[in-house]
Amino acid sequence: MRNIRVKTERLWQSLMDMAEIGALPNGGCRRLALTDEDKEGRDLFVQWCKEAGCAISIDRMGNIFARRPGRNNDLPAIVTGSHLDTQPHGGKFDGVYGVLAGLEVIRTLNDHNVTTEAPIEVSVWTNEEGSRFAPSMVASGVFAGKFNLDDALDITDTDGASIGSELTRIGYAGDTDCGGRPIKAFFEAHIEQGPILEAEKKTIGIVTGAQCQRWYDVTLTGQDSHAGTTPMPMRRDCVFAMSRMIREIETLVEEYAPDAVGTVGEIAVTPNSRNTVAGHVAFTVDLRHPIEEKMIEMDKEVVRRLTAVAEEVSIAIEMKKVSDVPKIDFDIDCINAIRDAAAALNLPAREIVSGAGHDAMYLSTVAPASMIFVPCENGLSHNEAEAANASDLAAGCDVLLHAMLSSAETANG
Amino acid sequence: MRNIRVKTERLWQSLMDMAEIGALPNGGCRRLALTDEDKEGRDLFVQWCKEAGCAISIDRMGNIFARRPGRNNDLPAIVTGSHLDTQPHGGKFDGVYGVLAGLEVIRTLNDHNVTTEAPIEVSVWTNEEGSRFAPSMVASGVFAGKFNLDDALDITDTDGASIGSELTRIGYAGDTDCGGRPIKAFFEAHIEQGPILEAEKKTIGIVTGAQCQRWYDVTLTGQDSHAGTTPMPMRRDCVFAMSRMIREIETLVEEYAPDAVGTVGEIAVTPNSRNTVAGHVAFTVDLRHPIEEKMIEMDKEVVRRLTAVAEEVSIAIEMKKVSDVPKIDFDIDCINAIRDAAAALNLPAREIVSGAGHDAMYLSTVAPASMIFVPCENGLSHNEAEAANASDLAAGCDVLLHAMLSSAETANG
Repeated sequence: MRNIRVKTERLWQSLMDMAEIGALPNGGCRRLALTDEDKEGRDLFVQWCKEAGCAISIDRMGNIFARRPGRNNDLPAIVTGSHLDTQPHGGKFDGVYGVLAGLEVIRTLNDHNVTTEAPIEVSVWTNEEGSRFAPSMVASGVFAGKFNLDDALDITDTDGASIGSELTRIGYAGDTDCGGRPIKAFFEAHIEQGPILEAEKKTIGIVTGAQCQRWYDVTLTGQDSHAGTTPMPMRRDCVFAMSRMIREIETLVEEYAPDAVGTVGEIAVTPNSRNTVAGHVAFTVDLRHPIEEKMIEMDKEVVRRLTAVAEEVSIAIEMKKVSDVPKIDFDIDCINAIRDAAAALNLPAREIVSGAGHDAMYLSTVAPASMIFVPCENGLSHNEAEAANASDLAAGCDVLLHAMLSSAETANG
Repeated sequence: MRNIRVKTERLWQSLMDMAEIGALPNGGCRRLALTDEDKEGRDLFVQWCKEAGCAISIDRMGNIFARRPGRNNDLPAIVTGSHLDTQPHGGKFDGVYGVLAGLEVIRTLNDHNVTTEAPIEVSVWTNEEGSRFAPSMVASGVFAGKFNLDDALDITDTDGASIGSELTRIGYAGDTDCGGRPIKAFFEAHIEQGPILEAEKKTIGIVTGAQCQRWYDVTLTGQDSHAGTTPMPMRRDCVFAMSRMIREIETLVEEYAPDAVGTVGEIAVTPNSRNTVAGHVAFTVDLRHPIEEKMIEMDKEVVRRLTAVAEEVSIAIEMKKVSDVPKIDFDIDCINAIRDAAAALNLPAREIVSGAGHDAMYLSTVAPASMIFVPCENGLSHNEAEAANASDLAAGCDVLLHAMLSSAETANG
């Protein structure tokens, strides 16, 4: 079994076929969670898995599990997978690679008539991106007991549609429990979404953990007034107030350089009219740091500084923490399985900490888990121009195959 | 005729009836230009004018003229009026008062069987606010020859609907020429939309002119990237860039205090996802100053400073000037007619410069014109809480009546 390899072309073609669903003009994809495009992507994946002989199971959060039986089906499965939903202007590889790499592992095992000791599963996790429904990774979070199922099903998008109603609408409201599924080991393959592997010419990132993350929804309330006639001292302008706050966020992140990152990605101005001083603004804050203590400091500071600005300019502020992801350390046996597979395949590899959030982070709290990163062009992701080359993707998939094989063979329940 | 007065209750009731169309939960109105609500407001006005014996004429920009004949209908008309469209979260009085004050003048002349020498007209100007279609005051601008008719009809809203197609859809694409209509004098009554009259306990503002105004559409282009994995130095974040620019605008306006005002009222972030660094942002800039030379300086400075920020942070910037309103000086005879009427009515009055843009500004370039201001509560406008009291509104309407009467009687073509 040591010599079997995945098929580079087949993996690439599946990625390109999936990328046609929700394709955008500049090479990217838009398959927001639980939209018609997401349904179409899920349907294609399910069809491919059935053709590969897998049994399909869907849980109450719409997570999909495609199972390839082992010799001993009482053993907990070796599971891989990621997500099929994308950012509004997403790329072809973020998430999708981890799902289709799993499918390619199964197809490769079929090619060589390999029967593993433990069963193998490929999973698809609902709403990883969090673009349509906040927070992100909500379905792996429910699976891991981080969120309550009913609360999660009630989460709505900006149009008021809920996760529960949209799952039903697209036919992916499954009936198995979300969580409690026995998992011997979980592996997630993913593009790095950062510049490190490419810069250091490494093909494989052995992911040892993930950085901390805090998300806030900030709302400001001042007073609508006329842009031509209201003297500056009488204004309570939420756009001016927001700009001061965003400058504070930028300064805070600079103080925690080079590891900290900070982003304001979403802004809604009300009434959003060019000749009215805005009396209401909502915006998001995303702060991350690889060290828990530093993250806690930044978290306190962002609240303190934004509140101070609000007071200074007489604007009411509300800050709601919508995500609080602690530092994650992945499982040493999973990490070693990846390291050994990369070494056996003679692939240049290095350890790396994930900058992004991934479903593997929640999975790691209920099962041994780790991730495999492959390089992407210019470290670019959440962008239509996101790119990765076929041989790197196949190399990562080979590492996944052999890490899963070694875990499946040594599986002992 | 010196003793005739408008009916306070009738004027107030008409304002309240009109305010029911597009009524908002907090007491304001939303009748965006050429929407179904705007049509309903226009229909009500036209019905009232017909009941008052007026002939209705509509021009190609959808401007409405309700005409009450004089003894000599070859004389150019004495015209009043304003607009019925509102801000997205507008009040009950902005624009509407000027239209319904004109109607109240006609009703009052009818009550007393007054026949004026020159005919009297009440006008409604399309899309004054500019909230749905930029620029504002576009239809009085076409009337005054400031804009080309066909260009104006082609202006689209953010959904791609044009002024021309929307005029046709709501039945207000008239067939008379926009412009060239003979006007002896134009008077526009309006709430001040600022704090001065209220603070100084004056009932009447004799408007001698209007301040300069510049509007820009600014678009920034950077690069979408992942909010968790893209190191800060590699980012080209348009939201951070915009915040620096808005701070520059705030500083610039402070340098020209106390007369200058500056507003960023509209922002659109793309892709507008909390965990994606925004690669595209569009926002508006509104700058005003009562002194032409200062306005020209500020205009140059805002371009210079925003361009400098863009260069500093490696973001591409495009600044499109969408409105450039010079300082307006109103006609001395019209100003005197208002001053004399206020004095004869024993109303406390002062001269004032308009901070807002008004249709009278364009009209003043093709006909003698001036405006009458009345106080509004806390100087608040472009806000649902916009308020004015019935006696002030009636006082302004009495001034309008007598200024128009004196102009109509002395009209000599």
